[in-house]
Order: sequence, then C-alpha cells, then structure tokens
Amino acid sequence: MRNSPCVRQSREPQFRVGILGATGAVGQKFVEILAQHPWFEITALAASARSAGRPYSQAARWIGSTCIPPAVAQMAVSPLEPNLDCDFVFSGLSAQAAGPAERAFAEAGYPVISNAHNYRMHADVPLLIPEINPDHTVLIENQMWSNGGFIVTNPNCSTVGLTCALRPLHDAFGIEALYVTTMQALTGAGYPGVSSLDALANVVPFISGEEEKVSSEPLKILGQVVGHRIEHASVKISAQCTRVPVLEGHLACVSVKLQREASAGEVRLALEEFSSPIATYALPSEPLKLLRVFDDERFPQPRRHVTMDGGMSVGVGRIRPCEVLDVKFVVLVHNTVRGAAGGAVLNAELLVRQGYLCKTIKEMFSVG
Amino acid sequence: MRNSPCVRQSREPQFRVGILGATGAVGQKFVEILAQHPWFEITALAASARSAGRPYSQAARWIGSTCIPPAVAQMAVSPLEPNLDCDFVFSGLSAQAAGPAERAFAEAGYPVISNAHNYRMHADVPLLIPEINPDHTVLIENQMWSNGGFIVTNPNCSTVGLTCALRPLHDAFGIEALYVTTMQALTGAGYPGVSSLDALANVVPFISGEEEKVSSEPLKILGQVVGHRIEHASVKISAQCTRVPVLEGHLACVSVKLQREASAGEVRLALEEFSSPIATYALPSEPLKLLRVFDDERFPQPRRHVTMDGGMSVGVGRIRPCEVLDVKFVVLVHNTVRGAAGGAVLNAELLVRQGYLCKTIKEMFSVG
Amino acid sequence: MRNSPCVRQSREPQFRVGILGATGAVGQKFVEILAQHPWFEITALAASARSAGRPYSQAARWIGSTCIPPAVAQMAVSPLEPNLDCDFVFSGLSAQAAGPAERAFAEAGYPVISNAHNYRMHADVPLLIPEINPDHTVLIENQMWSNGGFIVTNPNCSTVGLTCALRPLHDAFGIEALYVTTMQALTGAGYPGVSSLDALANVVPFISGEEEKVSSEPLKILGQVVGHRIEHASVKISAQCTRVPVLEGHLACVSVKLQREASAGEVRLALEEFSSPIATYALPSEPLKLLRVFDDERFPQPRRHVTMDGGMSVGVGRIRPCEVLDVKFVVLVHNTVRGAAGGAVLNAELLVRQGYLCKTIKEMFSVG
Amino acid sequence: MRNSPCVRQSREPQFRVGILGATGAVGQKFVEILAQHPWFEITALAASARSAGRPYSQAARWIGSTCIPPAVAQMAVSPLEPNLDCDFVFSGLSAQAAGPAERAFAEAGYPVISNAHNYRMHADVPLLIPEINPDHTVLIENQMWSNGGFIVTNPNCSTVGLTCALRPLHDAFGIEALYVTTMQALTGAGYPGVSSLDALANVVPFISGEEEKVSSEPLKILGQVVGHRIEHASVKISAQCTRVPVLEGHLACVSVKLQREASAGEVRLALEEFSSPIATYALPSEPLKLLRVFDDERFPQPRRHVTMDGGMSVGVGRIRPCEVLDVKFVVLVHNTVRGAAGGAVLNAELLVRQGYLCKTIKEMFSVG
Repeated sequence: MRNSPCVRQSREPQFRVGILGATGAVGQKFVEILAQHPWFEITALAASARSAGRPYSQAARWIGSTCIPPAVAQMAVSPLEPNLDCDFVFSGLSAQAAGPAERAFAEAGYPVISNAHNYRMHADVPLLIPEINPDHTVLIENQMWSNGGFIVTNPNCSTVGLTCALRPLHDAFGIEALYVTTMQALTGAGYPGVSSLDALANVVPFISGEEEKVSSEPLKILGQVVGHRIEHASVKISAQCTRVPVLEGHLACVSVKLQREASAGEVRLALEEFSSPIATYALPSEPLKLLRVFDDERFPQPRRHVTMDGGMSVGVGRIRPCEVLDVKFVVLVHNTVRGAAGGAVLNAELLVRQGYLCKTIKEMFSVG
Repeated sequence: MRNSPCVRQSREPQFRVGILGATGAVGQKFVEILAQHPWFEITALAASARSAGRPYSQAARWIGSTCIPPAVAQMAVSPLEPNLDCDFVFSGLSAQAAGPAERAFAEAGYPVISNAHNYRMHADVPLLIPEINPDHTVLIENQMWSNGGFIVTNPNCSTVGLTCALRPLHDAFGIEALYVTTMQALTGAGYPGVSSLDALANVVPFISGEEEKVSSEPLKILGQVVGHRIEHASVKISAQCTRVPVLEGHLACVSVKLQREASAGEVRLALEEFSSPIATYALPSEPLKLLRVFDDERFPQPRRHVTMDGGMSVGVGRIRPCEVLDVKFVVLVHNTVRGAAGGAVLNAELLVRQGYLCKTIKEMFSVG
Repeated sequence: MRNSPCVRQSREPQFRVGILGATGAVGQKFVEILAQHPWFEITALAASARSAGRPYSQAARWIGSTCIPPAVAQMAVSPLEPNLDCDFVFSGLSAQAAGPAERAFAEAGYPVISNAHNYRMHADVPLLIPEINPDHTVLIENQMWSNGGFIVTNPNCSTVGLTCALRPLHDAFGIEALYVTTMQALTGAGYPGVSSLDALANVVPFISGEEEKVSSEPLKILGQVVGHRIEHASVKISAQCTRVPVLEGHLACVSVKLQREASAGEVRLALEEFSSPIATYALPSEPLKLLRVFDDERFPQPRRHVTMDGGMSVGVGRIRPCEVLDVKFVVLVHNTVRGAAGGAVLNAELLVRQGYLCKTIKEMFSVG
Repeated sequence: MRNSPCVRQSREPQFRVGILGATGAVGQKFVEILAQHPWFEITALAASARSAGRPYSQAARWIGSTCIPPAVAQMAVSPLEPNLDCDFVFSGLSAQAAGPAERAFAEAGYPVISNAHNYRMHADVPLLIPEINPDHTVLIENQMWSNGGFIVTNPNCSTVGLTCALRPLHDAFGIEALYVTTMQALTGAGYPGVSSLDALANVVPFISGEEEKVSSEPLKILGQVVGHRIEHASVKISAQCTRVPVLEGHLACVSVKLQREASAGEVRLALEEFSSPIATYALPSEPLKLLRVFDDERFPQPRRHVTMDGGMSVGVGRIRPCEVLDVKFVVLVHNTVRGAAGGAVLNAELLVRQGYLCKTIKEMFSVG
C-alpha cells in the first residue's frame, strides 16, 4: 500500500479502532493490516462469548503467514457488546453474528465499517468501493441512529474485482449484460472452511449464496445517486461461481455486452486509462493504479500477481472480442485484502477524508 | 467400461493393433486401456527415433498409476515407419509429429485412429464421437488412399464433454450460441507438460490453441451429412480456457442460447433421456449411459466423479436458467480417457461394427 | 485384489455383515470394498443417533470417487445398538465412539473386526496383519465374552506399511532400533479432517497421537505367542509423523539398526523374497505379493503406486546403507485400503479360514 | 530484513554489482532482493548466449510474485564474459555453467559470491553462513587469483537450515551423529523444474545429488580454522531427501546423537539463546534473531512461517527426546532466500564489513 505523506506519520494515531469478530479469518486480516496503519490504532478486539476474556494470542487460531503483531497479542478479547473503547469499529463478523451485533453498535453511536453482507443491499447503507462510487457515502445521512452511529459496507470479494473492471466500461460504453465465471480461492471460505478432501486436486462448481451476490451487488455499486437514494444500474448479470485449489486470489472470466459498440482495443484503453476520482485524498491504502492491465496472455495469475500493490489493485488481462457477447477478459482480485479487510480499511480512510468519521469523533482531525 | 458379451471374451483377439507415439502421455494411456481389451491386441509400438529399438519399459517414462502391462513391457519400440505388424494403428502423436506420420501410414494402407488434431477439420476426415455422430464415418469413403488406409479422429478433450452435452439440446431445441469457460486438468498438457511452479495453487487463464478448437470442432461434430460432406452446424461459440491444479477431468461452465424456448427442467429431461444411437452395437468401451445428470448442486467434481463408468461417461450438473442467455450448466469429462485414448478406442470399436475396419482386414470378423 | 476361486463366486454370499460407523470416512471405504466382496454381504449399516433412521445415501456425505453402491444406497441406517441383523460387524468408528460400542457388540455375541485403536494394545485382542502375525488370533480364545463375541483389530495406517517391511528383516537379521519419518496423506484424517488452509502447499509436522502408535504397535505385531499371550518384540522406535498434501498413500522414510550385520543387498533380498505364510488360504483380498520392491530410485510414490494390487500391497524402495544406523529405505502403504478398511476385510477373511468366524455362525461354512 | 542505519540509506549505493545467471530462478531472486538493497546496486546482468543482448524483461521468464523491478527491466543482458561493469558478481548459475564461468570471473579479478555448488567443497573456498562460521573467510587469502578476484560460496538450501540449528548444539554438547529427512519445496528445483504431474498430490522420495550435499557440507561449515585450512567436523550424517508439493520452505526432521548428555530442555535453551557473533556488524540482511524456536507442536510450517524475518531466519520446533538417538526436532528454512540468494547477499555484506570486498575496490568504503 502507498505510504501516507511523511508529515502524518510523525503524528500519533488519530483514531482508536475496534474489530468485531477479531478472531476469525477476516478479523485476523484486519489485525494484520491495521498493525502498520498510519491513522488507525487497534484499541479493542471483540469476539463471541467463547473467546471473550482471553488474550488475543490464545483466542485466535492465527492463520496468517506473519506472526501476531506484538501490540495486540496480549490484548484481552472483549465480548460483542457496544461498549468498546474506540472511535469506530471494523466488522469481520460472520453473517450469523453480524445482523444484530452491527445494528447494536450503530445504535450505540459507533460507525461500523463492515465486511459482512447483511446490510449491503439495505437502501440506506453505502456499498462502497472508494475509487468506484465514493459519492454513495451520502446515504449515511439517511441513517437515523442516535449518537451518530452508522453502517458502511464493502462488497463481496468476487464482486469487488468485477465491479472495478466494469466501472470504466460502463462509463464509456454502457454495459447491457455480462456473463462471469469465477474461480475462487480457499481463503474466501474462512478457517477451517473448505475440507482439504474437497479442495486438493479438485474444483467445486458451487459456492452457497455467491452467485446471488455477484449478480446483484454490482448493480447497486454502479448505480447513481438520485436525491438521497441509489438508482441501481440496469445490467443483466449471469454468474457461475466455483472453488479452486488456490490460496489467495479470485480469478473471474468475464464476457460483456456493451450498449455502444467498442473494439477490444477501445475497451483495453478505457481500462488502462481509468483514473481514481479520489486520488487527491492520498489515502494510505489506495494503490497508485487501481486497474493493472496485462498484455501477456498467460496473465494475470493468482499465485503470481495477487500481491501486486499490496493486494489493493485489480488485474485485468486477455482483453479480446467475444463471439457471443461483445468483449471478454479476465479479472484478478485479492480476496482477503481488496476483497475484504483491505477494502474496508480503505473505506474508513475515505470516510475520514469525507468528514464522516471526523464528525463523530468531534472534529479532532481536520479534513479538506 | 462395459464388458463385452461373454462369448466374445472366449475368442482370441481379432485385431492386431499398433500405437504411434506409444511412449508419450496419450500413447501410454492407449497401452493401459488396450492391455485389457477384448478385441484388440497390441502387436506394435512406434515412437520417435530416440526411443526406437529400446524395450518399451525403458523407452517410456511411465506416468500412470498402474504398472506397465507385462505383455508390452519388453516389446521393442519401432520407428515411426509404416511397416508395422498390425491391422490398424492408434495415434497418440504430438501435433508436430502427427502430420506427416499419420499421412504416411494412411498412404501405406493403414487405418489410422488418431487423437491428434492435425486432420480433425479436414473435410474428408470424420471427427467422431460414436454416440453423437456415428454417421460421419461415411466420410471415410471420400478418402482415396491406396490399399484402404484412412484417417479417423476424435475431438479435443474439452470439446468431447461439451459436445456430448450439446447434442440432445441441439436436437430438441436448437442451439444458437453458447459461452463456455473450461477448467482443465494438468494431464491434458502431457508430460512433463505444465511446470509445478505454474500449476500449484494457481490458475493459468490461457491454453495455447485450445479456445480455437473448442470454438470450431463442435460445429463439425454437430453437423449433418449432406451427400458425402458435413454441413457444419451454425452455432456461435465463445470459449475461455484455463488450466487448474487438477490431475484428471476437465470441468466446463456452459451457458447456452436456444433457438426454441425451453425451461431448465426441459433441458434437464433432454439430457437425462438421451439414448445412444449405437447402443445395439454393444461396443465394449461404450458406457451404459453417456450422460450422467447430477442433482446435487455441488456436483460433478473432477476428483470425485471423473472415473465414473471407467471414465467414459460425461457428467452434467447445476442445470438452471441463465440470466443472459437461456440455460446454464456444468459439464465434466475425463480428459485422457473419454477425451483422448478411450474415445479413440471407442471410435475403433464403432468402425469394426460398421465394417470399416473389417474390410481392410479381409472380412475376418463378421459384423451385423 | 485377487479373485477368489470361481467355484466360490457362484455361491451366494455366506456371511451377512454389519458396518459400525458406516457414514464416516472409514465406514464408506468398508461399503465400497464390501460391495464387490465374494464372501461378505452388507446387511446392516449403523451410525450415530444423528444418522439413524435415514437412508444411507442421505446420511452419508459420500466422499469416494465411485458412486454409492446401489445395493446399500436406500438401506436405512440403524443406531449403534447390538441388535443388528448380521453375522459379524466391521467397525469404522471414531476413537470416541468405539470404546463402549465395540465392547457392547462383543458382549452381545458379535465378532467385531475393528479399525479403531481403542482395543489394539489390549493383551487379549489380536492386533492383526494376516501375512505378518496370523497366529496372533489365538488371543481370541482368551476373550471371555458371552455368546462367542470377540474383538480383532488392525493396526494404525502408518504402522501397517512399516511393520510389513520390518517382518522379513526382523526374521532374518533381528531389528534393534529404527527411526521413521512419515509423510501421511489427508484421507488419514477423515472427513472433513484437515482444513484446506492447513493442507495446501504445506506440511504439518505433527499428527496427534500418531507417533505413539507408530512407536508401540509394531512391537506387539512383531511379538511372539508364548502360551496365550504375546511377548512384545524389543525394538526401539523413534517416529516423526507429518501431514503432507497427498490424497492417498502414507510414505515413510525408515532407517534400521540390525542385530546381525547385513548389506543393503541382503536386506533387499529378504524383502523381495518374503512369502506370505497364509498364501494357501487363497483369501480374496490378499495381494499376490505383499512387498513390492522398487529399484528405480524415484519410486515408490504415493500418487503413482498407491493403487498397486488394489491398494493391498506395500511398496519398498531406495534400499541402501545408512551412515548412522545400518540400512535405510522408503515404504509406501495405501492408508485407507491396506491401512484401514481393506486390512480389516482381510482380517475377517483370515478369521473365516481359521474357523473363528465359522464357529460363531454355526459352522455354516466349512474350512480346511 | 533489518534496515541498515539511516545514515547509510542517505548515501548513494557504494557497490556496483553484476548477477551471473540473471535470468534463472536464483538469478531472479537476486534481482528481487537487490532491487531494494541499501549498499548494492545492480549494474550488470549476465546470462547464457541465448539471452545475451535482449532486454532483461524479455530474456527472463519472470516467476516471482512481484513485478520485475523497473530499474532492471530494460537493462540489456550481457554474455557470460568477465568484462562486466561492476565491483563484484553474484552467481546464480547452474552447476553446468558455474564451473568455468565462475573461475573465469575470479581469474579476471572479480570477487564471485556464488550460490552454485561447484566450488563449495574446494579447500580454499569459504562455504559461508555469516552467523555460523564468519571466520572461514580467511580462506580467501589462500586464493591466488590475479587482481584480487576470489570465490565465496553459500551452502545447499537444505544444508543451511540444518547447519544453523546444529551450530549451538555442536558448541554446547558436541554432535556425534544425526539423521535427517527433508521435505523440500518445488522452488528448490528451479523453473520449469519439477513437472506438475510429479508434484501435485505426491511425494518424490529422491532428489539427485541432494543427500550427498546435506551429508558433507555441514562438516565443512562446522569445521575449525586451523592455520589457513578448515579442519572438518567429525559428525556422521545420514540424509533422506524428498520433494513435496510446497512452494517455498524446506522442512527437515532431524534426530541428533550428542557427545555430552543433554535434556530436550537444555537443547531448546541452547537454540533459543544462540546469539549471532556478527550482530555488531549491523548487516542489512541479517535477521534480528537467526533461530526462531516454536513451542506450538504444530509449528513451524512452510506456508505459515517461511517468510518470517523476510525469509532470513530459521524456524525450529518440536524439540523432544529421541528414543533412538538423543534429541529430535524440526527445522524450517526459506530455500530461495536464506537458502540461496538471500544467503549470498548476506555473505557479501559480511565480506564488506570484513574488508574483503573493500580491498578489491580500492578502499572506497571505510569499515570498522
């Protein structure tokens, strides 16, 4: 990830953050990413009753390839109750736990930056990718929780990569329909997640609930703000989601039908030239370039390219005409960084710059 | 594979067969399958100059999970010259070698049952799946080689599974267009084939030449015999072929646009009820049922189901409506059995029953 | 597996067998193996309360690469109570369940042929590998259950391969000590067993309880019958057990200190010439040759050789001098066939021939 | 890797380095590591005639998970001739190429810091692990090349981890003999290296030449400088080397016979308390702690822990008594970083501090 300007690094961390579901796979990724963050300092870790009260290093069965950051290893895990000592919370909760817990935190006045899918499609909740639909945060103003609490969500891990690639095409040519086949990594299922006997040397052609998310979430993200509501984009999406024996990185084969005719070269150019509308914010986690276009037809590949730009950029390759729709290509996204915890952290950074987090914490951080 | 009727098993093998490219991956699979065959006995093994003269067990770096059949282990490998002691040959040659060698054998009077792609699209060469287009063998009669030699081919490994599933749909509803994403096994690339550093925990979104084959071969196979030529079917096919870390079994995600409207249930029924037009021939390698329909949405899976029916049937699952085209589903085929050597052996069995092989070997085997 | 003599195949199955723990990974393997067995017919399937009452095809999440045998798919699963309609039972129960359940069945008069480890080291329970210690079945006569019930066990999956290779060396030269490092397959941990995130592209250098079993069980198996007891062999064993991303086949690197000096060539010969003491019994599941010696230094390999002889033989390779002890080599065993269900079935076949099962079922089957 | 003191970072790179065999797997790792190095700047890339003259980004089939560093992507590859524009060279050459090429560079006056095995056991060539035998560099003074050229080597990838763990035990208790089984990663074989059909879901119990290296190299590294020669340590080593489907990280199961009795606890303490004799040099690539002791019996694991300390530390776990020798444990080393390119870079850093590189480049860098 890009470093924030030096001047900021010299200040003390300005935000004290909590992590809900801190012991799970997504929660651990939050811990890993935030351990080095220039703006956010972890001050609370919350998880289910089973973990509460234990030191984090014991409560979490750490699955990362790094060690548990020393600063949190001995921190006691709190129960999932909205009295954490922090300015806002990230939520890596599972779908079962997220519904009531995130609501309770928002009602108690906490901004909740969530990776769970429960509130993603709620009309007043932003489903946010900062470079794609930063204006959707206006929905926060519809949320009438007491004390300034609110919920902001990031999309499903497969949705993120796909939608990042669709944005410039939708803007330039309009998208009428698309067909997508995903080949998703095992980390997308959490831990212990997929049995090794289902994974090794195999493909499972089904992931529960995934196709529904991939078919619906992009419509909201690509939608337009009209008044205080999002008018969903009108795109027909057909998805086939599979699980492959890959550790990190969801690959998607996409074919798109455009509203206006465009050559593969024009599509390539639109992807290549996409520029982030929020680049001037200099958010610490924003990659220098969101879309990395590959011209080598063997690329992108999960194992080789998933960690590009710290896992925050999206790879696009094999851009070529489609014999049935108009143009087809391949998209790669880091499912646990850009597609989960990293995406949520970037969302929080945007909210800081837009003033949504500052307001709740009494303007202690001045933004442009 | 189905056993042939008992009465046949008691006779001596009626055909003496040679294998071209016997030391390669496909050649080894021919050896493995033919070791137990009730009609065919291996009498000649031919390979490149490097292997010629050596005992087969030394010349072939055996990659199978069985041992080299004792009957062939000590057989000397012959050079690729058309003077083999056999009634006809199977060809597992690579594309580079197959062109001139197969032609030379056909010219010298040998029927050549080939797995190579070189002559597949030649107007006078049948591209044959016995249960799908058994009437295409009439093309043999166009081949004007001296001494009764001819060439018959089987399709690309991914094409086979796809086309088997398309046949009943094309017959019942007509197919206008289709989009297919394949996830192909490593054995499809031969040995040593794909480097483990490209394969392990990775997906490679490109296989050289594969998309072209998958896009064109089904049109010939689904075509109609008109006079002595094949009128290709008119179907638009868009293919995206990828390599996944699976050992055996190509999985394909298919979406089809039909000419006549049909529900997913009607499509399922057409697949389920497909019956082989050659069932009465009782070919030893024909599976009891070509198409195995799975209703469990997690199936078919390469590791679990690829060896069904000895690798000769094709699995179809997840039949459901497509939001963009009409209906989508998943297809599984055993790439080295039905998709290569096993398919070629079944082709030879059909030719025996149809009399094309009998003629060349002086009617020593009477057929219905 | 070797076919039994033709005359037997024409008779009806002579034994009606039940499977305890029929829905688990080992239980499924029993179902798969017994579906084709010439002597044994499955008449009862028992499992935990959760499965009881449901048809087997619903109760078992089938993990095999074949389909559920039609003969048992619709059979209702019984609870684990000793009133099953069968002559004897195979037990694929987990360690937690096996203790009380196997005891209850034995007390109720059922012979229990178990794969569980609970009773393996009990002084009166044979720990049996038919080709290695067939005389240990005399311990059955110490078991004083009412009605002729008894328990016979097969060893831990890693122990089996190791001990088969040790037997001829112990007989010829005496074994003083040995050091073994195992690389064990994922199927050894059952289903769901090992998480794919622990398995893929990884080695786990610990398997709970495994080193203790590998260090102690061979001592009993290699022990001598003295009176009605087993005098354990006196061999020091040091084991290091690891889990590797292999589907089937445990590989072990073994180094042995002999009591009498022997060259690697003499050790090789002793292994090569080992002949089964029970060959004349013509047991259906006994392989033609128990020990397969490989001279190619790259072999044996799990993926290539694990299914040799239907998974019932043991591969030995790389026999060479050890710089620290005396001789070292590599051993491969099929962990779910020879090392579990297949081994137990062979145990039952031996018991039939020795008359231990016949007695209990009222002499309906005459043995030599 | 540890950062060097800030004051150094502000200077321009002091050494201009070339890489021999720059396009191969080890060469690429050199490029990756040196791209960020505070002391060394890549000024020359040399490879075989086939690559010479082409831009590096075309000549190298890049296999890393990062992109080619921009600074070298367009650099033209030179032939392997000793006229490169640099102060010294790193050699990632294969064994076939390294013999004559490294000699030619040394004769021409270049210091050669080599990863190849050709000169490792030569009496006048240091086989160097900086924290283990930094005094062995005195051998350089025996090398009588003109112009100050010399050769220094780092050990085989498996040897490195093993020998780091042996050093403190040898110092504290004396080592008499040891038995080691390695489970080695695929990257150890280079690219394309191991075929995926040999690697996936398999173990290959043989790696050509590996056991010889693991049995002999530690004796030299643990040896003592006597006069201007190394007196090799007297330890019997028995090795069994296997290839497993892991991407990076060689795991070794080791059992050691000590000269003086010691408990597992004492052994653990000796490992835990090992302190680097060169810590005061503050070498940029030296890890804070060479030996990381794990007390969780499931650890260390290749996938989880191989990147600890930038791949420069060595993990040790499962320290416990051995029933046959004295104590056994598990060792993990990053085979392409500490075991190859990273180790060589650290060697060069040591040589800078010891003055061996400074001398040759005319004292432009003052050392303590």
